[in-house]
Amino acid sequence: MDTLCRVSETSTCPFCDRLLSDATLLVSGPNVAAFPDAFPVSPGHALVVPRTHEADFFALAPEVQREVGEAVCDVRTLLAGSHVPDGFNVGLNAGIAAGQTVMHAHVHVIPRHRGDADDPRGGVRWVVYERARYWER
Amino acid sequence: MDTLCRVSETSTCPFCDRLLSDATLLVSGPNVAAFPDAFPVSPGHALVVPRTHEADFFALAPEVQREVGEAVCDVRTLLAGSHVPDGFNVGLNAGIAAGQTVMHAHVHVIPRHRGDADDPRGGVRWVVYERARYWER
Repeated sequence: MDTLCRVSETSTCPFCDRLLSDATLLVSGPNVAAFPDAFPVSPGHALVVPRTHEADFFALAPEVQREVGEAVCDVRTLLAGSHVPDGFNVGLNAGIAAGQTVMHAHVHVIPRHRGDADDPRGGVRWVVYERARYWER
Repeated sequence: MDTLCRVSETSTCPFCDRLLSDATLLVSGPNVAAFPDAFPVSPGHALVVPRTHEADFFALAPEVQREVGEAVCDVRTLLAGSHVPDGFNVGLNAGIAAGQTVMHAHVHVIPRHRGDADDPRGGVRWVVYERARYWER
């Protein structure tokens, strides 16, 4: 891509912008790349992002979805070496109702260390935090 | 598989058990299946589960990881029809530090409706809930 993706008359997509800054990329392939999250919830928190501007993961072509999955594994290997975490969360938000705030498909890869949350149980169940504590039901 | 996977002398893996109950499966392939989550955080919340008993997603063979990804898309299509949600979260917990509690690889597919959480922003960022509200930093 050689131009910023315009999401409106006055603004561009922040992820299309980031994808052009090769220096900050952790992984860079022809269709998919990864870069550090701008508001990491843990050290190393990264995003795997397709180079095409599609609203969410399910709008991507199957072959690009596959490449995103492969890049998630590559990023996980990379972060396992650099941050030596005790675990990982991987996840995506598709749609505003699911908490998506940047409307360019992306997958979070989040290294986890013991003690980084009071009680990590449930992991991605916390997307509906009122319902996450299934052991209290 | 024709026997329950023994995780200790006295207990079996709950997911290996569930995989044998064909009647409850949403999707059933030779290597991967899906069934409703036992403690759903939203109506339709489902799990995509490989038939091989491996501790987490990253312990799976690449071809099984790919099949898990395809099954996630199949389950999403199925739930889009049956539950007509406004969005989806997809995510996995790998390791106790990441909140994993059943040590058989699985991916959550969580349909979301507007209003099912007070403020859904951040989605999977809530795995580290103290750090999820990035807009407050």
